[in-house]
Amino acid sequence: MLTGRIADGNAGPIAQRLWAHGVRIAETVVLGDRVDDIAARVSGAIADGIELLVTTGGLGPTADDLTMEAVARGAGVGLAIDAQARRTVAERTAHMRLDPDLRERLLDRQALLPSGADLIPAAGTAPGAVLAAGQALVVVLPGPPWERAQMWDWAAARAPLSELLARGQHPPRKVLRIFAVPESQFVQAMERLDDRDDEQVGVAVCARDGELEVTLDGPLEALEGVGSHLRDAFGDRVYSDDGQDLDGAVQNALRESGQTVAVAESCTGGGLGERITATPGSSDVFLGGVIAYANSAKESQLGASEELLTRHGAVSAEAARAMAEGVRAALGSDWGISITGVAGPGGGTPDKPVGLVYIGCAGPSGTEVEEHVFRGDRERIRARATVRALHMLRTALT
Amino acid sequence: MLTGRIADGNAGPIAQRLWAHGVRIAETVVLGDRVDDIAARVSGAIADGIELLVTTGGLGPTADDLTMEAVARGAGVGLAIDAQARRTVAERTAHMRLDPDLRERLLDRQALLPSGADLIPAAGTAPGAVLAAGQALVVVLPGPPWERAQMWDWAAARAPLSELLARGQHPPRKVLRIFAVPESQFVQAMERLDDRDDEQVGVAVCARDGELEVTLDGPLEALEGVGSHLRDAFGDRVYSDDGQDLDGAVQNALRESGQTVAVAESCTGGGLGERITATPGSSDVFLGGVIAYANSAKESQLGASEELLTRHGAVSAEAARAMAEGVRAALGSDWGISITGVAGPGGGTPDKPVGLVYIGCAGPSGTEVEEHVFRGDRERIRARATVRALHMLRTALT
Repeated sequence: MLTGRIADGNAGPIAQRLWAHGVRIAETVVLGDRVDDIAARVSGAIADGIELLVTTGGLGPTADDLTMEAVARGAGVGLAIDAQARRTVAERTAHMRLDPDLRERLLDRQALLPSGADLIPAAGTAPGAVLAAGQALVVVLPGPPWERAQMWDWAAARAPLSELLARGQHPPRKVLRIFAVPESQFVQAMERLDDRDDEQVGVAVCARDGELEVTLDGPLEALEGVGSHLRDAFGDRVYSDDGQDLDGAVQNALRESGQTVAVAESCTGGGLGERITATPGSSDVFLGGVIAYANSAKESQLGASEELLTRHGAVSAEAARAMAEGVRAALGSDWGISITGVAGPGGGTPDKPVGLVYIGCAGPSGTEVEEHVFRGDRERIRARATVRALHMLRTALT
Repeated sequence: MLTGRIADGNAGPIAQRLWAHGVRIAETVVLGDRVDDIAARVSGAIADGIELLVTTGGLGPTADDLTMEAVARGAGVGLAIDAQARRTVAERTAHMRLDPDLRERLLDRQALLPSGADLIPAAGTAPGAVLAAGQALVVVLPGPPWERAQMWDWAAARAPLSELLARGQHPPRKVLRIFAVPESQFVQAMERLDDRDDEQVGVAVCARDGELEVTLDGPLEALEGVGSHLRDAFGDRVYSDDGQDLDGAVQNALRESGQTVAVAESCTGGGLGERITATPGSSDVFLGGVIAYANSAKESQLGASEELLTRHGAVSAEAARAMAEGVRAALGSDWGISITGVAGPGGGTPDKPVGLVYIGCAGPSGTEVEEHVFRGDRERIRARATVRALHMLRTALT
């Protein structure tokens, strides 16, 4: 958990919540649906004195959903039907056309919990469970993220899990987000640190989409020391030191200034708008935009002239400028952000290679255009372009 | 790996590639950046007689990048500077302003491979390695997906990894994708199977975004038997039995009919366009679209009248129809797909609750509108709506 990598990668939201409680994650294991393997892992973790074991997935009605059975076996207990769980599953599946006898068997199957476990009421159709086994608390959650999140929050608010989480040691921690700084530059800045701070502070760096997420652990004073040292070294490229992410920073900057934004996307195909609107409340600051994938759309929807597109090409600073100004005018927003580029794998030429991206930012005081060449595959080039566009807007706003 | 869950979830592209070679994945483990933990895992895997161990991440220049050291220690060998790796890192970092002595130390650090390991040339700046240790082949790859994928393919095409992969036992396998079928209905269909097929075939089901991905393993004849049984049970809701996914099916159907599509998105904010354009070659069939997040955008860009939006609301069958027909007309595409709904968490009302989504599909022979109520959080509701919209287009096309 201290690395950030795990939170970014596999354990996801649950790991984030545990981290917030100061719980150290020993490891995350992914197993196939082989009941013996899972049971062996559970009994192994209990034997190792693990305090908290969280399982996700494998609670459905199909034959490969074996987690409850495996957890029970691993904890050395049997399985018993939970009446409340059975009622819930019955309600949630009442509308499905099923053979009566099959329905009964499915209800019995999905209502099985390890003997002695507490029920976590189902958010979807699959109930969860909290089982005390040896030193360990085993929390059994379903796979779908939204069910998992709801059911985790429900269990975490109640004993015994709430008591266990309350024991978590939460060291002072600071997360800095840094933009457009290579990892090696970061290493150089850290080497120039006052040794005293350096020694006291644990540093974990996660590089992604052109940003560094730096997690600092240590005494509060030392954290502040390292934090201000990094701000001295990188200035406003350190754009967050309070855990706020890029999306939150952009939305807040727009909301505070009472301004709105619209997007004009070619190679990202709607990814910039999708990302802006992933944050609830975005409707206060985001009006919408145009996905101008074909040139005809750039002309009809954004007023980019055929002559401009022919002379300079759709992937050009001129096209990015016309798209940003065009969408700002068309939607009547304060800001217009455009992205046009060659995402690949095809479509590259010697003078316009795969990875070449132009980003336009049109605002009250004029229009800026940036040219970038991003290395990587189609997915990464589109992600880099999206992040860069958000930073261009953030910088223009602050 | 046999479950599909791992491939969908954590191990990702590498797991997919291993699966294609018929390699069975014992487990996937995620560890923090603690060199002892990683080294212990590596030596443990080697002692357990694991044939192939793939590590990803932890190859950067920062202090928490410890994988090469951990692998070497776990394999009981030392570390040695690889001259070719050092040259590559030097080239790739030449443009960065670094203290000369720091640069030398960083080059030495990033060029360190376990003694006796073969170099995997860096796709980015971090070199990888292939190390034979005991029965095991240890493949060390960087974290960024695009670097990892390129470097894996490079290593997999060469001995010794190519030889190991060639030994993979690849049982006959069939992947069916089924749409709008609850898991319990699937269980019912499987129960009605001829027992002989049932016994011979391993079935793994992954439910996601309203689809079931069913992986069948077994003798070819039995696979065919189960496959045709499921097609009898679910008809054209079995939309793929050759591994083709939804995105490929939609793009192929459009390409084969020589038709184009445009999108009009409200609550998905561009996610439908982003998904369509994630598939290379989408420019042949996708013209673009309008992200009509604010009502003003629905009016100005799609011609949805203020009167209609006031009378029926922006989340209504009428609005979805107007948006789909509006974007089809505005962009001159053969098809127009619209999504408007309440993604939440806020904005729900008694008659228009969170999860209510209208999807419009306007085509050469008229316009259809579907009403759905999706359960879940904002992310899931948007994902469900996007998948459903693609299926609506796919169905209309075939």
